Amino acid sequence: MEHPALDLSQDAARLTAQLVDFPSVSGEEKELADAVERALRALPHLTVERDGDAIVARTDLGRAERVVLAGHLDTVPIADNVPSRLDAEGRLWGCGSSDMKSGVAVQLRIAATVPAPNRDLTFVFYDHEEVAAELNGLKRLVEHHPEWLAADFAVLLEGTRGKVEGGCQGTLRVRVETTGKRAHSARGWLGENAIHKAAPILERLAGYTPRQVDIDGLRYREGLNAVRVEGGHAGNVIPDHCAVTVNYRFAPDLSVEQALAHVREVFEGFEVVPTDSAAGALPGLSHPAAADFVAAVGGEVAPKFGWTDVARFSALGVPAVNYGPGDPQLAHTREEHVEVAAVLLAEERLRGWLTA
Amino acid sequence: MEHPALDLSQDAARLTAQLVDFPSVSGEEKELADAVERALRALPHLTVERDGDAIVARTDLGRAERVVLAGHLDTVPIADNVPSRLDAEGRLWGCGSSDMKSGVAVQLRIAATVPAPNRDLTFVFYDHEEVAAELNGLKRLVEHHPEWLAADFAVLLEGTRGKVEGGCQGTLRVRVETTGKRAHSARGWLGENAIHKAAPILERLAGYTPRQVDIDGLRYREGLNAVRVEGGHAGNVIPDHCAVTVNYRFAPDLSVEQALAHVREVFEGFEVVPTDSAAGALPGLSHPAAADFVAAVGGEVAPKFGWTDVARFSALGVPAVNYGPGDPQLAHTREEHVEVAAVLLAEERLRGWLTA
Repeated sequence: MEHPALDLSQDAARLTAQLVDFPSVSGEEKELADAVERALRALPHLTVERDGDAIVARTDLGRAERVVLAGHLDTVPIADNVPSRLDAEGRLWGCGSSDMKSGVAVQLRIAATVPAPNRDLTFVFYDHEEVAAELNGLKRLVEHHPEWLAADFAVLLEGTRGKVEGGCQGTLRVRVETTGKRAHSARGWLGENAIHKAAPILERLAGYTPRQVDIDGLRYREGLNAVRVEGGHAGNVIPDHCAVTVNYRFAPDLSVEQALAHVREVFEGFEVVPTDSAAGALPGLSHPAAADFVAAVGGEVAPKFGWTDVARFSALGVPAVNYGPGDPQLAHTREEHVEVAAVLLAEERLRGWLTA
Repeated sequence: MEHPALDLSQDAARLTAQLVDFPSVSGEEKELADAVERALRALPHLTVERDGDAIVARTDLGRAERVVLAGHLDTVPIADNVPSRLDAEGRLWGCGSSDMKSGVAVQLRIAATVPAPNRDLTFVFYDHEEVAAELNGLKRLVEHHPEWLAADFAVLLEGTRGKVEGGCQGTLRVRVETTGKRAHSARGWLGENAIHKAAPILERLAGYTPRQVDIDGLRYREGLNAVRVEGGHAGNVIPDHCAVTVNYRFAPDLSVEQALAHVREVFEGFEVVPTDSAAGALPGLSHPAAADFVAAVGGEVAPKFGWTDVARFSALGVPAVNYGPGDPQLAHTREEHVEVAAVLLAEERLRGWLTA
């Protein structure tokens, strides 16, 4: 199917509809990436780079600050919900309407209509967000071209229903292990029960008081939880091994290393084996660009508890938030839609922030 | 292969050799059971009963006491160790030599040579001991003909290397469970961690002091042990269920019901689900017949910790011990053998006890 060129002169809601009608399931983003690249190259105030199906376009006005507006081009598989449809209540329906072609439309509108922003802008459009992390286009950009992503602050336009969600918590998983000595359970005194030895591990978890940390006015609630426990061989054998898998969700004022040090401290005297981890992301709301952003977009600011791609910016030293018109509850559903008013509002708020 | 009739005029060691040369792997006991039945029916002082391949032969002399001498006819599969072989050091080699055709030979010798014992005698020979418990011939006799097994005391001639092993401990398995509420581990405070709730279960196990109980001069050491612990769904989910499987090995002064009541007391406040159990067996060594037996056979008396068929007698109210010439360490091995001297000694000791 031939798609017409993207028309960036439409408002963000209409542009969302055009983007929804331009299918781009993960792995099949090329055609849309081509169209985005063409549309951006037509804008003389932008320098455009490409890596695979990720596009990075930048102003270079020598402003004191640079901010990133980022979004992914791909969607989950279509579920009989393309082409888009606008209903009488002002809702635009279709695959990707909330997650996150409405956000991409806002990015493109700002790119097209704010040629002289008060901060230098970097627009990032990337592929493969909805699939395995190792394919993630933003991850690839971080690895291939970290310099393209350099900035003072980043906004990821993933759906937040218009709230600002700051940073994200980190996550660390470890196995806390005990060892014992096998024996027949009829002669238990000849063995050492590794499950019994795990009692203090569970006691410490049960008695643990998670931190609540205020960062840039956001309250992050940590958590230290057993997510699995395993031990035992047979109904008549004293077990010689027990492992408790513990997940530490930590506020973004800690690095992974600090988080691990804390967990080792909690489980002092036990073997602690880290299995996987991901750093958190600082909201960076105390940065002038971010504070100004929050003031401009208004509304509620909340901490993000789950892990999101904003952490990839944080890892580069760029504080980042999620802010987008979509509704995360509708993402990946057959009933995916977005409020037209929310899309227009996000466009207006961002323009206000970047032109004040 | 035609087997000659069993010659009960031989000593117990030679008779053991003849029995080893008469294969009777579990399920194929019929031919040997037929031979045993024929040999016993030839003895006018005995009344002989049969159920499947189990034979029960009894004196009926109106003695003040009745004792059982019991043994199983079957063996594990032959491992290139039939026919039997006598070596220069006085060891008889072959499948079943220790487990327990030497014991059966002693039974048959007593049956043949003690026509007027000082106690009435019940000889029990049974099938299917080496396979799944539901096939066990003694279990079947208990169900079909408990009256055939009525007695004041029972000796099971399983190999104990000539020691008396008294009674056996009971065993009870329960699942001690906790429930919670699932939640994403990034928002742990929305859930209730069932693994953390299991902390007191492991604490109580770790802090538990097992009883040591003296019964009839034997010291039984109990044990209360976690043999399995399971909980958890995924690395990012607060688990809503955790189960600790606990095995209680209890001294035979407790019934299964009392053992369960004790375990429920230990884990008060938790759900306790019994999964399987087997009653223990009292050694009954304070019974005059038993005391006399121990005095007559001499040697060390030890408690039996694992569960054995003696518990089936105990369940009928018949105290029972293990006493036999075989070596349990050699049972089920390719190198199975028995000391000829031990077989002759067991024969002599039992005859002494029953004719004094």
